[in-house]
Amino acid sequence: MRSGTNNAVVGQSGGPTAVINQSLVGVVEGFRSGPAASRSVRILGMRHGVSGLVRGDLLDLTEIPQDALDRVADTPSAALGSSRDKPDPEYCRRILEACRESDVRWFFYVGGNDSADTCRIVRAMAVQAGYDLRCLHVPKTVDNDLLGSDHTPGFPSAARFVATAFRADSLDNRSLPGVKINVVMGRNAGFLTGAAALARQREDDGPHLIYVPEVPFDSDRFVGDVDRVFSRLGRCQIAASEGIVDGSGRPIGATLIQGGQMDAHGNVQLSGSGALGDALASLVKDKLTSGRGTAKPPRVRADTFGYLQRCWPDPSPVDRSEAREAGRFAARLAAEGAEDGSVAIVRTSDSPYSSTFQRIELGEVAAQTRRMPAEFLAGAHDVSEAFLRYARPLVGELQDMAWL
Amino acid sequence: MRSGTNNAVVGQSGGPTAVINQSLVGVVEGFRSGPAASRSVRILGMRHGVSGLVRGDLLDLTEIPQDALDRVADTPSAALGSSRDKPDPEYCRRILEACRESDVRWFFYVGGNDSADTCRIVRAMAVQAGYDLRCLHVPKTVDNDLLGSDHTPGFPSAARFVATAFRADSLDNRSLPGVKINVVMGRNAGFLTGAAALARQREDDGPHLIYVPEVPFDSDRFVGDVDRVFSRLGRCQIAASEGIVDGSGRPIGATLIQGGQMDAHGNVQLSGSGALGDALASLVKDKLTSGRGTAKPPRVRADTFGYLQRCWPDPSPVDRSEAREAGRFAARLAAEGAEDGSVAIVRTSDSPYSSTFQRIELGEVAAQTRRMPAEFLAGAHDVSEAFLRYARPLVGELQDMAWL
Repeated sequence: MRSGTNNAVVGQSGGPTAVINQSLVGVVEGFRSGPAASRSVRILGMRHGVSGLVRGDLLDLTEIPQDALDRVADTPSAALGSSRDKPDPEYCRRILEACRESDVRWFFYVGGNDSADTCRIVRAMAVQAGYDLRCLHVPKTVDNDLLGSDHTPGFPSAARFVATAFRADSLDNRSLPGVKINVVMGRNAGFLTGAAALARQREDDGPHLIYVPEVPFDSDRFVGDVDRVFSRLGRCQIAASEGIVDGSGRPIGATLIQGGQMDAHGNVQLSGSGALGDALASLVKDKLTSGRGTAKPPRVRADTFGYLQRCWPDPSPVDRSEAREAGRFAARLAAEGAEDGSVAIVRTSDSPYSSTFQRIELGEVAAQTRRMPAEFLAGAHDVSEAFLRYARPLVGELQDMAWL
Repeated sequence: MRSGTNNAVVGQSGGPTAVINQSLVGVVEGFRSGPAASRSVRILGMRHGVSGLVRGDLLDLTEIPQDALDRVADTPSAALGSSRDKPDPEYCRRILEACRESDVRWFFYVGGNDSADTCRIVRAMAVQAGYDLRCLHVPKTVDNDLLGSDHTPGFPSAARFVATAFRADSLDNRSLPGVKINVVMGRNAGFLTGAAALARQREDDGPHLIYVPEVPFDSDRFVGDVDRVFSRLGRCQIAASEGIVDGSGRPIGATLIQGGQMDAHGNVQLSGSGALGDALASLVKDKLTSGRGTAKPPRVRADTFGYLQRCWPDPSPVDRSEAREAGRFAARLAAEGAEDGSVAIVRTSDSPYSSTFQRIELGEVAAQTRRMPAEFLAGAHDVSEAFLRYARPLVGELQDMAWL
C-alpha cells in the first residue's frame, strides 16, 4: 500500500489480552491528534503483526470514527490480529523494506519482550541504512514478566480473572470438599498465579497452597503439603503455575507427563491443554490414597483456566485506563521526536493507587524476562503481604462473598 | 437439635450453581413470612444436605438478618455446603428418623433429580409411618436436564458464562488462528454446550461446530468437519460437551482416552479433568496433519471450562430472580398446605420474556433426565434457531464485541 508520505504502522503481537486493544486505540488516538493532525500522514494497522506488514496486509485506521475505536478498545483480544512470529535479522530486513515501500516513518508495536526486540533490531537496521524510522514499543503481557516497569498492561485484568475464579471456586470447594488444583498461566513468572491469593476473605479460604516457577517444585513435598492442609480442613485448594520447574529447571509438566501421561505423539504441551493439572491430580490421588491407609481417599479435581485468563471481558479498571494511556504515551513520545523506546509504568502511590508513564530504552525490555522478587514470596508455597499490597490496587475491588 | 415444635429443614444438594443460594434464601424468606411468621417454628439449615441432617449438623436460620441473607443470595456455590449422597431406602429411613427427632414437619431440598427422588422416598415413608412431613423440592442444575419445567435455575447463569467465554475466546482465536476445542459441562444433555451458539455476532464467528450428547459422535466425521471449517476460515472453534457418546452410547472420553491416553490408574474421569479436550485435540493434530500432506499443520488447543461454569459470579438477571422466586414459591406451597411437590418454571412469553411458577408432582422430576428435543438441533453439529430463541432471554444481554 502506497499512500502519501510519512506514514505510521501499528500492530499487535503475542498472546492477546483483555486490554491490548486499549493500547492499539491509544496509539491511534494519540497519533491522530499528534503527528497526523495537521499533515497528510496515515496510520496503518498491520494485520497479524509484522507478518501483515511484510505481506502488505494493512488497514488504514486514520479516519476510523471515535465511537468505533471506543468499541474496539473495550473488546478483548487483538482486533488487528496477532502473530507468534519472532523476527530474526532476515525477517527484520523485510520489515524495514516494507516500511520504506509504504513511506512508514513510525513503527508502533504492542507486545511483549520479543516485540521490543523486533523494534530494537529494526531500528538499528534503519539507522544503519540511513532511513528515518522511529520504533516505539507498547508493553503487554498477562505474565507481567517484562523488565523496567512496575507492571505490564494486561496483567491486572488477567489477575482479576484469576482472583475472582479462585474466590468463587474456593466456595465451590467448601460446598463439596476435596482437593482442587487450578493451573494458572505464567511460563516464567509467578505473578499471575500469585494473584490467586487476593481471593482470600477468611483465614481458612483458598488458595491454601501456591506454586510458582520461582520456587523449585518437589513432588513429594507437594503431596505432603496437600496432606497437611487436607487433614486440617478437609479440603485444599491449590494454585499451580503452568511453568513450575524442578530443582534443575526441568518443567514439572514434562517430568510428570513423560513419566506416564505423555500424549500419543510424545509431546508435552503446557498451554491449551489440561495435562499438567491432570498429572498433579494423579500424583495426589496416588500418594495420598496409599499414604492414608483405609481412610476415605479425597476427591481430587483439576481445572486449567486456559485462554479465558487472557480474554475474559471484565478488565480491571486500572488496567483498562493504563493500557489506553500507554498507547497514547507512545504516540506522544513520537510527536515529541523520540526515535525509539518503550513505555514503562511508574507507580507513584499504593493507596490511593496512582501511576505515571516514562520512556525507557528498548534494550531494557527486549528479549529479557522478569521474575517475582524474593520479597513477593512467603516460604515455598505462598506469596507475601508485600505482593498483596502490590497486586491489590491493580486488580481492583472483588465481589464480597458470604458463607453461612 | 431439639427446639420447639413443628420445624422446617432446608438443604442444598449436588453440584453448586451461581444461584443455588438465591433459592435457599427464597425458601428461608418465604418460610419466615409464612408458616414461621406467627408460631414458634424454626427453619434449620442442613449442613452438606441430608448428610448434615442425619448427623444432627443443623444451622438455625430463623433469625438471620435480611442483609446477611441478601449477601448469601448473591454468592455463588452452596452456602450450607452440598452433598453427593444419593440416599437409598435405608438412608431415607435415617432422614425420616432425624426429622422426627427434631420435630421437623417441612423438608425443603434444593437440588437435581436425585434430590427430588429423596423427597419422594422420604415423603412416602413418612406417609406410611403416619408422620406428617411435607417434602418440597426446589430444582437446580446447570445441565438443564430436569423434566417438567421450561428450564432449571442454575442453567441460565452457566449458559451466560459459556456464551461469554465463547464470544471472547472466538476473538482470541481470530487473533491467533487455529483449531480451538472448548469442553463444556453437561453429562446427559447438550443445553449448556448449545448455549455457546449465543456467542455468535458475525456470520463467521465461532463456535463453528457444536457437539452435544444427543447426537452420536463419530471421530472421523469430526475430523472431516474440522478440516472443512479450517480450510474455509483458517480457524475453527469447537464446542464439545463432556458427555458426547458414540453410536452405541459409549462415552467418547472413555473411548479416546482408553485408546491411548488413560491415566496411570486406568481411570476415565470427565469432569475436573482436561482429558477429553486433550484427546480430541490429539485426534485433530494426528489426522489433520497426516491428511494435509506437507501443508502447515494447524495450531490445535483445548480448554476445559470446568467448575467456573457453575460458580462464576455473574448470574443472568433472569436466573438470579427466578431462582429466588422458586425458593419463595416452595415456601408458599408449604404455607398453603401442599404435602409434597416440586417447582416448575412455566414460560409465558418469549419477548419480552416472562415466566410463572407451578407445583408439579415429585415423580415428574425424580430420577429422570431430560435431553434436548429434536427441534433444538440443526444437523449433526449445530443448534437451531428455536434453541436460540429459547436460550437467548434466559442468558440475557452479552457484551457487544468489535473487530477491525
